[in-house]
Amino acid sequence: MQFGSDNQSGVHPQILAAMTDAASGTAPAYGEDDWTQAVTERLSDIFERPCQVFLVATGSAANALALSALCPPWGGIYCHHAAHIINDENTAPEAISGGARQLGIPGDAGKPDPTAIREHIVASQIHGVHNVKPSAISLSNVTEWGAVYTPDEVAEYGAIAREHGLGLHMDGARFANAVVGADAHPADLTWRAGVDALSFGATKNGAMAAEAVVFFNDEAAEAFAYRRKRFGHLWSKHRFLAAQWLGYLQDDLWLDNARHANAMAAALASGLAAIPGVDLPWAVEANELFPVLPTAIATQLEQAGATFYPWPEQPGMVRMVTSFATTEEDVAEFLRIAASVTD
Amino acid sequence: MQFGSDNQSGVHPQILAAMTDAASGTAPAYGEDDWTQAVTERLSDIFERPCQVFLVATGSAANALALSALCPPWGGIYCHHAAHIINDENTAPEAISGGARQLGIPGDAGKPDPTAIREHIVASQIHGVHNVKPSAISLSNVTEWGAVYTPDEVAEYGAIAREHGLGLHMDGARFANAVVGADAHPADLTWRAGVDALSFGATKNGAMAAEAVVFFNDEAAEAFAYRRKRFGHLWSKHRFLAAQWLGYLQDDLWLDNARHANAMAAALASGLAAIPGVDLPWAVEANELFPVLPTAIATQLEQAGATFYPWPEQPGMVRMVTSFATTEEDVAEFLRIAASVTD
Amino acid sequence: MQFGSDNQSGVHPQILAAMTDAASGTAPAYGEDDWTQAVTERLSDIFERPCQVFLVATGSAANALALSALCPPWGGIYCHHAAHIINDENTAPEAISGGARQLGIPGDAGKPDPTAIREHIVASQIHGVHNVKPSAISLSNVTEWGAVYTPDEVAEYGAIAREHGLGLHMDGARFANAVVGADAHPADLTWRAGVDALSFGATKNGAMAAEAVVFFNDEAAEAFAYRRKRFGHLWSKHRFLAAQWLGYLQDDLWLDNARHANAMAAALASGLAAIPGVDLPWAVEANELFPVLPTAIATQLEQAGATFYPWPEQPGMVRMVTSFATTEEDVAEFLRIAASVTD
Amino acid sequence: MQFGSDNQSGVHPQILAAMTDAASGTAPAYGEDDWTQAVTERLSDIFERPCQVFLVATGSAANALALSALCPPWGGIYCHHAAHIINDENTAPEAISGGARQLGIPGDAGKPDPTAIREHIVASQIHGVHNVKPSAISLSNVTEWGAVYTPDEVAEYGAIAREHGLGLHMDGARFANAVVGADAHPADLTWRAGVDALSFGATKNGAMAAEAVVFFNDEAAEAFAYRRKRFGHLWSKHRFLAAQWLGYLQDDLWLDNARHANAMAAALASGLAAIPGVDLPWAVEANELFPVLPTAIATQLEQAGATFYPWPEQPGMVRMVTSFATTEEDVAEFLRIAASVTD
Repeated sequence: MQFGSDNQSGVHPQILAAMTDAASGTAPAYGEDDWTQAVTERLSDIFERPCQVFLVATGSAANALALSALCPPWGGIYCHHAAHIINDENTAPEAISGGARQLGIPGDAGKPDPTAIREHIVASQIHGVHNVKPSAISLSNVTEWGAVYTPDEVAEYGAIAREHGLGLHMDGARFANAVVGADAHPADLTWRAGVDALSFGATKNGAMAAEAVVFFNDEAAEAFAYRRKRFGHLWSKHRFLAAQWLGYLQDDLWLDNARHANAMAAALASGLAAIPGVDLPWAVEANELFPVLPTAIATQLEQAGATFYPWPEQPGMVRMVTSFATTEEDVAEFLRIAASVTD
Repeated sequence: MQFGSDNQSGVHPQILAAMTDAASGTAPAYGEDDWTQAVTERLSDIFERPCQVFLVATGSAANALALSALCPPWGGIYCHHAAHIINDENTAPEAISGGARQLGIPGDAGKPDPTAIREHIVASQIHGVHNVKPSAISLSNVTEWGAVYTPDEVAEYGAIAREHGLGLHMDGARFANAVVGADAHPADLTWRAGVDALSFGATKNGAMAAEAVVFFNDEAAEAFAYRRKRFGHLWSKHRFLAAQWLGYLQDDLWLDNARHANAMAAALASGLAAIPGVDLPWAVEANELFPVLPTAIATQLEQAGATFYPWPEQPGMVRMVTSFATTEEDVAEFLRIAASVTD
Repeated sequence: MQFGSDNQSGVHPQILAAMTDAASGTAPAYGEDDWTQAVTERLSDIFERPCQVFLVATGSAANALALSALCPPWGGIYCHHAAHIINDENTAPEAISGGARQLGIPGDAGKPDPTAIREHIVASQIHGVHNVKPSAISLSNVTEWGAVYTPDEVAEYGAIAREHGLGLHMDGARFANAVVGADAHPADLTWRAGVDALSFGATKNGAMAAEAVVFFNDEAAEAFAYRRKRFGHLWSKHRFLAAQWLGYLQDDLWLDNARHANAMAAALASGLAAIPGVDLPWAVEANELFPVLPTAIATQLEQAGATFYPWPEQPGMVRMVTSFATTEEDVAEFLRIAASVTD
Repeated sequence: MQFGSDNQSGVHPQILAAMTDAASGTAPAYGEDDWTQAVTERLSDIFERPCQVFLVATGSAANALALSALCPPWGGIYCHHAAHIINDENTAPEAISGGARQLGIPGDAGKPDPTAIREHIVASQIHGVHNVKPSAISLSNVTEWGAVYTPDEVAEYGAIAREHGLGLHMDGARFANAVVGADAHPADLTWRAGVDALSFGATKNGAMAAEAVVFFNDEAAEAFAYRRKRFGHLWSKHRFLAAQWLGYLQDDLWLDNARHANAMAAALASGLAAIPGVDLPWAVEANELFPVLPTAIATQLEQAGATFYPWPEQPGMVRMVTSFATTEEDVAEFLRIAASVTD
């Protein structure tokens, strides 16, 4: 009953098999191999346009490197105040961008309020070089509070970005869960809505350590190979990043894994909602849920070995995350224990 | 007949097996897992003292992060002018250290001349803040020109470092090959000779993407966890970095792989030396050799599909690298073709 | 009737005279001159303890360099959310610290709420390297909202800093006005209350371009000469920074100038308070006042050539700043016009 | 008899008068004043084209900021191995550029060998992102060894820069001396020969602390205002930087001062050349000379209070620098003493 985070799960067999297949024989290093080329082609197919793709091992690297390509060192990056990039990646965005600043914006469901962003842009123009220069917007999809964006919602940020000359980044550490949750096309959630660069995560959804920075903006991508190299993120045996991606995309595993994880979260939410005393103030749209648990229930679950973390937004609120590896048995057992307490 | 680089080889089965064993089940993320703890214990055993160990995926990350812990942003890092850190990692040392400068020093066999380092330290003290502050020495072992250090040689740099308050770093991307090549104890080549931090490589010697920064100096290691995190090098599914290391260290695989690679290089060298017209100006001490090949031989080998790269130090010189995966058949075939040309 | 900012005033004759006296003859460059030594001695006298003093030309440089000495690149700096360092210096703190993050804290009168700082420190410790490491507190004295600190108030932050291992910085761009406003001893407002480093401003109070970073903490000061040099802030003809300071400190000019400026602000406040419709919601404790002016009055004053800036905290609020050069005639004229509108 | 450096001289009366004239009254801060506008106009007149001009207080700031506008953080900057930027400004170029690397190139007279630059550019292209990206060339004019460039010489670097897409920077800390020494038009020495950005110094030639970054390339200048601000180099009382420049340029003071300094150097060289045992291996083309002095002469001069510094290129070589303030009496006395020793 591990619901602490989807990054506590292991590696999906199909992805491990792809890595194993790649393990013997020699191949050119540093991304000059065939696996890497194939990943770019597959992602270009999925997004229905040519993409520039750069693979790295961690989400923090993907995010900070992508932002550094969209924002100068004197720029400001609008994001929700609870976003992963501002709360959970130390000062990676500053370090890798050369000092750009993240500007935490409030908003419902983990989505930064577009009106607040517009107002901040206008206000900052009064002060010229004394202020940070508004330069980028970063959206987490899935948001840090478990919600997903519709294509129209993303497009609203895209419009702001175009109007004011900002770049638009999407932190898609859980992009597959967002695609499934919104029942939307990947292209509609990204470049058709104005996204310039996507951090497309595989790690949380079944890979070992594999994230893709997908550029829909060639100019922003231009120097990215240098950026990746100089922060130590270019693998020599690069085929093993690529093999993870090929395994992840093959036969829509990425979507299947996300469908499973989202379904498990829905099942947990549905079961918990039926238990007296449990509150679910936030919508469950992907693979995270944030129930408010009575202390007795929480204690009982923890004693039974269930893992989840307190979430500071509300007293008693916890975050639970499901993954490709979450079993129906664990869900049922969790709900059984939770329900038993209120007897 | 791939002798381009040891990073063009794949993954050793024992290491792949360790990763596969770790692939199922949940584990705490970000290095709080048991695999990671075990790696620190194993390395502390091997080095015969408590070590602080931090795992990352690339050698560039290991080197630049280690140097940033030994050198302030206004510091100078002495290294051989042909060192990997100054020639092949873009500006990673600058980027990750916050602007420290590498000072390329000449010297035989890829070893920076100790006297030149001493003179530079003295000269730079005249100018105070106008110069970079001498802060660290970095040795590549195996050197970029294929040589290995004896413990006494390392200790000479250690003495300079202690005398002048510098840190001593060893870039051990091929540390196993160096240990085998010098027939020396790992501790004698490192902390007993004054090394503060070692970039210990596994990738080139059979792992997929796994390097360890091993600190023998607790003060230097103090903030390293922050450094690693903020440049995006802390894996979430950290057990898979650790599992590679456990597989690598188990039953001395690291040494066996290196012994094999070094033996293959020696066999190539021995065979080539017997061919009229081939010159081997540099000693072959690990898994690299730098023969000067007559054009006719080089052309014939390339046409047969052999890979190796030109090396700019001498006309006609090429670099050949062997690895754990190099076969005796490939060596024999390479020598047969080379010998046939001179007939 | 220029009340836009004290940095729009010129240079006080006594300071200009000191610079003129230094203008002929040769002197050692880069701070090895006698003027510079004398400044350190004078400031050590004033603060009643040995200080380490570093002169620079701008307040942004003084602040960012001082913070970089108190906070590692992965650290967080607590300051009021309206502080100059976070609002008006672009990304200078990030650029010069190597990526440290400023954390804007709310609080009355421009003073960051100590309880909020304590809570944030505790909360951030839960997440280890994933969060910024709480590292420094920066107080603006005079605050951005025109208030001054008592020694006891500063000491409360000093206690937090000591308890949690943080550095304490004071942005004293208007330190003289703060000393006069609080009627406190400079030592009591700084090191006796736990301040490690003070950005002591002279520019706004009569100098041309002269700020001193005064360290009360030798360890923090240790590498400061390197920091100053490598960001281009070490003057070659350093005696002219020092001469400004000698002129500024001679015969307590710094205090006299501040007394005058503060008195002019008090006179403006007193006069405005007597005018129907004018509100003064914030206390006037130094050389800034923030009246809320009826539109008719504001318009009439602007038409008469008075300068002041809108202040976003309240509708109709403006900021007025007095300086050593503000005349009683200008104050009287300003009040006469303001009063005439309500007739 | 101070020949240690031209930055040990004071401020020329005409420049001090301009500053004094600006000292009273209020003016807009941060460069929005009339003085600043006038400097841009005057420099555009002198260079016979519209220029973008940014004033700062130090040469290190001017150089590092200008280079940061011409070179990305992953770029390489070619300069002579003895250049001031690589030898005397700590790591300012790295710090302010975000990590770019200076590549010291040998060459006669302090001029980096153009052929060596071309070869390095070609060689570095082989390795792609693994190498620094050749991005800028920086010439010191006057060179660190006292020579000046002809317009044709500069144009040769300009041609390399255009051919390979590099920026061309000139460190003109002694630009006036170079213009006089080459008897060339400022435009011919800069933009007509391909220079993109000039660090135009006034400090060493009579100002207090005033350098201008002059851009002949609008694209490179685009974000410079942000760069200057975020490293703390935008003065609030900016009129005092501008007033120095107006005084410096008025009635060709800048050229008169340089003519005087160059003439004093020529007189010293001429006198020394006539003294048996004194060697002048390098041409004297501006305001620096590098005689090789017999020990007896050097000792006698030092005992008489003359200042000059040893220069490491040759045993017995010293550097002597003249300035606007050097007197004919000091020159005569110096020569008298030197000549007396050999009697």
